[in-house]
Amino acid sequence: MSTVSPRPGSSLRDGDLVAALDLGSNSFHIVVAQRVLGQLRVVDRLRETVRMAEGLNALGGLAPEVRERALACLARFGQRVADIPRRHVRAVATNSVRQLRDPEAFLRPAEAALGHPIDVISGREEARLVYLGVAHEQPPEPEQKRLVIDIGGGSTECIIGRGFTPLERESLQVGCIASTRRFFDNGKLGRKRWQAALTEVELQFQQFAAPYRSLGWDEAIGTSGTHKAIGNICAAMKLGKGSITREGLAQVRERLLQAGRIEDIDLPGLSDDRRPIIAGGVLVLEAAFAVLGLEQIQVSKAALREGVLYDLLGRGGADDPRELSVAALMQRYGVDAAQAQRVESTALQLFDQVAAAWGLGSEDRAMLSRAARLHELGLAIAHSGYHVHGAYVLQHSDIAGFSQQGQRFLAALVRSHRRSVPKSAFESIPDRLLGNARRCAALLRLAVLLHRARKDELPPGLRLRANGDRLELALDRRWLHARPLLRADLEAEPEDMLGLGLQLHIAQD
Amino acid sequence: MSTVSPRPGSSLRDGDLVAALDLGSNSFHIVVAQRVLGQLRVVDRLRETVRMAEGLNALGGLAPEVRERALACLARFGQRVADIPRRHVRAVATNSVRQLRDPEAFLRPAEAALGHPIDVISGREEARLVYLGVAHEQPPEPEQKRLVIDIGGGSTECIIGRGFTPLERESLQVGCIASTRRFFDNGKLGRKRWQAALTEVELQFQQFAAPYRSLGWDEAIGTSGTHKAIGNICAAMKLGKGSITREGLAQVRERLLQAGRIEDIDLPGLSDDRRPIIAGGVLVLEAAFAVLGLEQIQVSKAALREGVLYDLLGRGGADDPRELSVAALMQRYGVDAAQAQRVESTALQLFDQVAAAWGLGSEDRAMLSRAARLHELGLAIAHSGYHVHGAYVLQHSDIAGFSQQGQRFLAALVRSHRRSVPKSAFESIPDRLLGNARRCAALLRLAVLLHRARKDELPPGLRLRANGDRLELALDRRWLHARPLLRADLEAEPEDMLGLGLQLHIAQD
Repeated sequence: MSTVSPRPGSSLRDGDLVAALDLGSNSFHIVVAQRVLGQLRVVDRLRETVRMAEGLNALGGLAPEVRERALACLARFGQRVADIPRRHVRAVATNSVRQLRDPEAFLRPAEAALGHPIDVISGREEARLVYLGVAHEQPPEPEQKRLVIDIGGGSTECIIGRGFTPLERESLQVGCIASTRRFFDNGKLGRKRWQAALTEVELQFQQFAAPYRSLGWDEAIGTSGTHKAIGNICAAMKLGKGSITREGLAQVRERLLQAGRIEDIDLPGLSDDRRPIIAGGVLVLEAAFAVLGLEQIQVSKAALREGVLYDLLGRGGADDPRELSVAALMQRYGVDAAQAQRVESTALQLFDQVAAAWGLGSEDRAMLSRAARLHELGLAIAHSGYHVHGAYVLQHSDIAGFSQQGQRFLAALVRSHRRSVPKSAFESIPDRLLGNARRCAALLRLAVLLHRARKDELPPGLRLRANGDRLELALDRRWLHARPLLRADLEAEPEDMLGLGLQLHIAQD
Repeated sequence: MSTVSPRPGSSLRDGDLVAALDLGSNSFHIVVAQRVLGQLRVVDRLRETVRMAEGLNALGGLAPEVRERALACLARFGQRVADIPRRHVRAVATNSVRQLRDPEAFLRPAEAALGHPIDVISGREEARLVYLGVAHEQPPEPEQKRLVIDIGGGSTECIIGRGFTPLERESLQVGCIASTRRFFDNGKLGRKRWQAALTEVELQFQQFAAPYRSLGWDEAIGTSGTHKAIGNICAAMKLGKGSITREGLAQVRERLLQAGRIEDIDLPGLSDDRRPIIAGGVLVLEAAFAVLGLEQIQVSKAALREGVLYDLLGRGGADDPRELSVAALMQRYGVDAAQAQRVESTALQLFDQVAAAWGLGSEDRAMLSRAARLHELGLAIAHSGYHVHGAYVLQHSDIAGFSQQGQRFLAALVRSHRRSVPKSAFESIPDRLLGNARRCAALLRLAVLLHRARKDELPPGLRLRANGDRLELALDRRWLHARPLLRADLEAEPEDMLGLGLQLHIAQD
């Protein structure tokens, strides 16, 4: 990657640094870029082989030595990004962290070591970012469709896109480390074993192969260490011309089977580092070739981290992918846009009155705004319990641009915007976000309550003050007196607010 | 109600009887009609005051004497419909049964007493049926919009519709019995108490009043015993001309407050039967008048049971409301129609091979067909766990035309169509449907599995045989041999089928 044009809305200025970290299942990467003359230039890259996937057991536990390796790596990376402002750094974790039984137990020390929050992203969000990274590194021909395959340590992403837009995104639970461990754990590479393993991996690709093949593509691109390693072997064996062909891949597989054991693999161009996990990588790629009917695939250097960097630049602008996702959800679920806008406007007005006292920042403001726009989404399912249904959809959907923590933040606000607040509403929110999530939820509750009549009117002199866990809402007494329904609602509100750990006092003047 | 034209698709012939039962919170009703010269004519009506809502406590328990009263009534009604074929009888239960902690504990003996299944319907489905009944009894002017309010014992339905089509449907947890118990439990009718109660009930109407008022209506119609009773009082007091006016209602309320106690209420035209619950009814209607800005409301004799009868006639035809609902869900969630059609066609082909051996009927076939069309609905939420998401949506949505048991049936089939089948998948299915639901689920699993490649092709000589809990699938050996992926899927299937209580054997010939 050489240069990235900052987009409208980006807060970057010349000289600013920006960094993307990728906590992958095989290695951790960091890329740092600087804005120079309106363009971004990569100034640093670091990579460490952590092999998180190797330390993960079937129950979602993480081996202590792998955990230590990961934390030590993050401490080193943290030093590299210590002076970069938080909004210019984004760290993402993928499959290995998704598989942990208790991700928070790893994320808390990991974020402390790095000095920055770490976003856990879903497989399909990973697929979107990989596609962005490749599209940026190798700008696509207009109108041409492109298949991108990223074989990670624990998962594999397959995307078809046109231009900078992904059209189909899938994430499979197969990867080079996971497949090597699963099928060749005893270190032996037999032909029969290979064939059985291939059938199983093919089944995974089969799940989405038909719509992919009927959509079609003009070129296929592979990213990730597995593709680079197989590309290097093919180049060293003089197979294909700068890409991996079906025939070349078959010859690499034959060389693996001839070796008979992982420790005896001896392929030109293969690093010692990659040898223990190359068999699983070749297996996954062979399955992809077979099921998708590929003849050849080009190798790209770009990957998830370039996608994260590129995505970070779009954030805050008009085409922030999160804003596009919120608009798409509002449309699919037929949200009443006028009511959403009313509640959003009042929620943000209340936010601005207490943000300083409560130490809330621009990211909290953006999340409150999104939750306000989406709070009635569940009405498309049923009126009864619609806040529960909306939270379900927000927590479980693949929503482009959001981390899993971000989706849970939104879901918690929507879940608790009316009726009583159960303890479970916030249980999956990371500790570092919990206080702010509860406070934003309180602001959303008040905004919803004030607009329950679905009108634009607001009480004159509406004032909100915060002081620790105490919240004071002041309204005009005469105005309120003329609205007995709102008054009854407000009288019941302090009790529900206790569920958010807040004491609400209502003053009439 | 005098006549109803049978619709295309209805299986009724001249001389046939058809019956609708309504297990309401205040009374149980039955209406029996006969087809004469191509029209339906009401031949019998029965009504018993059971006051289910009176026997319901806050924890969802039912007082034993009320339970006995209900079962005795159903036994009498059952005698009346004993000779009518099952497909020509429909019994629906509303709010009081919805509120029960353990509805099955009541429904099992109730269905035994009646000799027919009882569908529990949601508040919004009740609203749809009430609107249908009124539209039939008083055919609407074309293009005119109509507001219909049905004040039941435990819930109140508000609908705006045009012609025979409801546009907005809401169901509120306020009713004449519930409100009398809640606000006037000590038998006293004080002005201050009345005003506080009115504010609370108004809050309920306030929830949806704004969109209703902005949609607007040309006429307002009230149904149910409460409206009839208030209409009779107004007529006897010479207030209004055959309808209830704002002024007339206010005078009735003043007479209630002057009485001061429920037992002292003495209003012209009021029956002894209605006296104990008239205060709650007047309260709810006054709240509706205030919040919706009504000046007057006409009283209609039609109600839920006429709607049920009319709906029953539409069933099985091209405009069966359930078929329209399935199509609407497929559209909202962007279901791949080609795949849905493939799976449906194969599922029904398998169904027809085992229906006799398994004793499955036309209603099971229709449900399997719908589940097949909807099984991929959850993909709109996320690929991962999409069968769980689809089941969530089907279980929790208000789906026009379906009973709650019907929605649970669909949800269970979608939940169990792939991966392993947890015990919880079928836990909310009534005992009488459980066996057939499991068997239909097995047929859906096989159809999905056979079309996993999303192609139309089917194995030649595909044969399915059922014998009790044993299921034998026969396929062509050579055909299967050429499809190792399908073979691998089929080999794993018998273990998952055990979760449905079935032993699957796969024969290759």
